[in-house]
Amino acid sequence: MKNYKGLLIDLDGTMYRGAKVIEEAPRFVKRCREQGIPYLFLTNNSAKTPDQVAEKLNGMGIPASSENVYTSSMAAASYVSHHRPQAKVYMIGEEGLKQALEKQGMTFVEEGADVVVVGIDRGLSYEKLGRAARNIEKGALFVSTNGDKAIPSEEGFLPGNGAITEAIALTAGIRPIFTGKPEAIVVDEALDQLGISKAEALLVGDNYYTDILAGIHSGIDTLMVETGATSFKELNDVQAQPTYKIKTLDEWSFFS
Amino acid sequence: MKNYKGLLIDLDGTMYRGAKVIEEAPRFVKRCREQGIPYLFLTNNSAKTPDQVAEKLNGMGIPASSENVYTSSMAAASYVSHHRPQAKVYMIGEEGLKQALEKQGMTFVEEGADVVVVGIDRGLSYEKLGRAARNIEKGALFVSTNGDKAIPSEEGFLPGNGAITEAIALTAGIRPIFTGKPEAIVVDEALDQLGISKAEALLVGDNYYTDILAGIHSGIDTLMVETGATSFKELNDVQAQPTYKIKTLDEWSFFS
Repeated sequence: MKNYKGLLIDLDGTMYRGAKVIEEAPRFVKRCREQGIPYLFLTNNSAKTPDQVAEKLNGMGIPASSENVYTSSMAAASYVSHHRPQAKVYMIGEEGLKQALEKQGMTFVEEGADVVVVGIDRGLSYEKLGRAARNIEKGALFVSTNGDKAIPSEEGFLPGNGAITEAIALTAGIRPIFTGKPEAIVVDEALDQLGISKAEALLVGDNYYTDILAGIHSGIDTLMVETGATSFKELNDVQAQPTYKIKTLDEWSFFS
Repeated sequence: MKNYKGLLIDLDGTMYRGAKVIEEAPRFVKRCREQGIPYLFLTNNSAKTPDQVAEKLNGMGIPASSENVYTSSMAAASYVSHHRPQAKVYMIGEEGLKQALEKQGMTFVEEGADVVVVGIDRGLSYEKLGRAARNIEKGALFVSTNGDKAIPSEEGFLPGNGAITEAIALTAGIRPIFTGKPEAIVVDEALDQLGISKAEALLVGDNYYTDILAGIHSGIDTLMVETGATSFKELNDVQAQPTYKIKTLDEWSFFS
């Protein structure tokens, strides 16, 4: 294994499961820090701000500051700033997305938007869905943070951003650009922020269909752990394999 | 052409376009009435009650009582009463669907539903989408009035019931049963109400992909007019053809 210059690390299934830390995770991140290897936590959660994500991690004994967090909302905001700088945005979303767009100098409008950006929004309404679709119909770029269809919760599944986005796409008759995993966009934008090249980067995650595929789509090496969504057995069904597979993060050596 | 014993007549594009009556429509329905041929107006609109639909038609000079109206909501309620009599229903929808379900003896619940029934709901919320998905996950039958993706309005497209239903289906990971056009269900239930057999029935409509296909799926004869959604030219692209094609309803003779 190579001496990577930077890590992109998934959260749910890799660092924790729901509210419970994964035993090996704090050790892994501390080793990473001791070796002076920069890392970014990569999450499809579009509702939380980097501060909120870092706070949860610290509470679990995983060293993290807001600078160590990269969300699908930040990827969306960064993508929009490259393609429509200083855009007028109609947003469906929560604080994490709002803050990310503001940091990129976007302004918010209800009509006449240059871009529609959609993230998870627990204040969703029929009115918001229609407004998004009509702005898109009139020519606004259609960007969505991620395509996750459902969010597991204690009571059962909650609608994910992918489900909300699909309702808008069907109404407008136009497909969105997703920025989160498994798209390459979030990986490319995160590497940009980390200041390293693709050849120097390793993506660490548990979910083949979001994490590992994001790495594969972007063209970087991937490390799959078996502490979350996908079992190694399921890899028999897919063609593109992760670069490395380990049961838990304790098995990883940072230097060859 | 045969001497049909009953007609199923589409509304938008066949009787009117938006708020404007189609010139030949009142004459057609009056001729129908003079000949003593029973008819039902067949609409995918799930929000309106039969009374409200009849009122609009009368206002345009088209003779109609509530008994002449059959909605996708009535088809849904009837379908549910056959498969889950006296069911506990979690409903997303408006007055038309509520009334139809009540008439079939259904009771409304928030949790522990036997059936989830979805119709257009301009009071839609994230909470409602999630509640529908969780009831379905726990085993409730999933019924939706229709799959229409968007509703044209003066400001642009509004989310249709098909868009709302898709968000729920993606969250729950389960596909719904649609009852409205182009499904056979609404036609079969309407014929049941009209008390005629398939061989005696004619479906009249403008939209190949909803009206005419509903007739074809049900196995009844169809009459397509060119006053609405589909041009005759577009029929070159489809295999199953309508039984008859006429430019306007004035061209139709009730007896051969």
